[in-house]
Amino acid sequence: MIEIERKFLIKSDAYKKECPAGIRIQQGFLSTDPLRTVRIRLKGDKGFITVKGKSNISGTSRFEWEREIPKNEAEQLLKLCLPGMIDKIRYEVKTGNFVFEVDEFLGENKGLVIAEIELSSEEEDFPRPDWLGEEVTGQTKYYNSQLSKLPFGKW
Amino acid sequence: MIEIERKFLIKSDAYKKECPAGIRIQQGFLSTDPLRTVRIRLKGDKGFITVKGKSNISGTSRFEWEREIPKNEAEQLLKLCLPGMIDKIRYEVKTGNFVFEVDEFLGENKGLVIAEIELSSEEEDFPRPDWLGEEVTGQTKYYNSQLSKLPFGKW
Repeated sequence: MIEIERKFLIKSDAYKKECPAGIRIQQGFLSTDPLRTVRIRLKGDKGFITVKGKSNISGTSRFEWEREIPKNEAEQLLKLCLPGMIDKIRYEVKTGNFVFEVDEFLGENKGLVIAEIELSSEEEDFPRPDWLGEEVTGQTKYYNSQLSKLPFGKW
Repeated sequence: MIEIERKFLIKSDAYKKECPAGIRIQQGFLSTDPLRTVRIRLKGDKGFITVKGKSNISGTSRFEWEREIPKNEAEQLLKLCLPGMIDKIRYEVKTGNFVFEVDEFLGENKGLVIAEIELSSEEEDFPRPDWLGEEVTGQTKYYNSQLSKLPFGKW
């Protein structure tokens, strides 16, 4: 239930050459408190409810609890969410034994693209493809919960 | 997913004559926003995550979504909750074809007892046992989410 992730900007869209079509993700938040974030997500035909806790100091690891739920229930719960829906296309980019999840944001966050990689330990080494840009792990303004309140278009 | 409930104080503890032993409930909140309350509950050996939406004007009906989750996951999620755990004993009091859920609060809410009945419509008639007291439906100070912030002992 502890997720270890690192987050990067990108230098180019070369990642698209290496992966299948993206999947649309729409999500909202019942709580954007960084100590107890509650997210409702629609991803293709699936729904999810996710709770995230406090990050460690580097922002690399964070408690995360998730359950898949029926799509129609996720749709109902999305209606209860705070203003500021996140809308994005996710590409899953296989790189060696790893997968980068690359999110192209839409709507008020259009122009922002973030690549995330999940690791099994804080020290684990991982590939750095040419398109990978500056690391932004732990910068809370890049949290989706914070982007829902202060979108990239307003930075 | 719309719950219709009415809530009452009690006049005496005569309800205890009519029901089996109570079950301990401990619960905390990831959000106490009345428009999108998120509750984590431990009830005996079971865990639950519940989302509640806005009430109608009378406070009788409210959107409610709930999933049972493993007890150990509920215990983990309780650690993330806002300060102000709710601790109570619940008695299920069968009355005709209805069940009153009577909650005896502990801790900072000790002294407060609330009886709730779930109805299938706003107009549905229901029994009024002798021990049933004043109706408090729709008074937000009696919401568990609000009792977690301003407990009965501080009123």
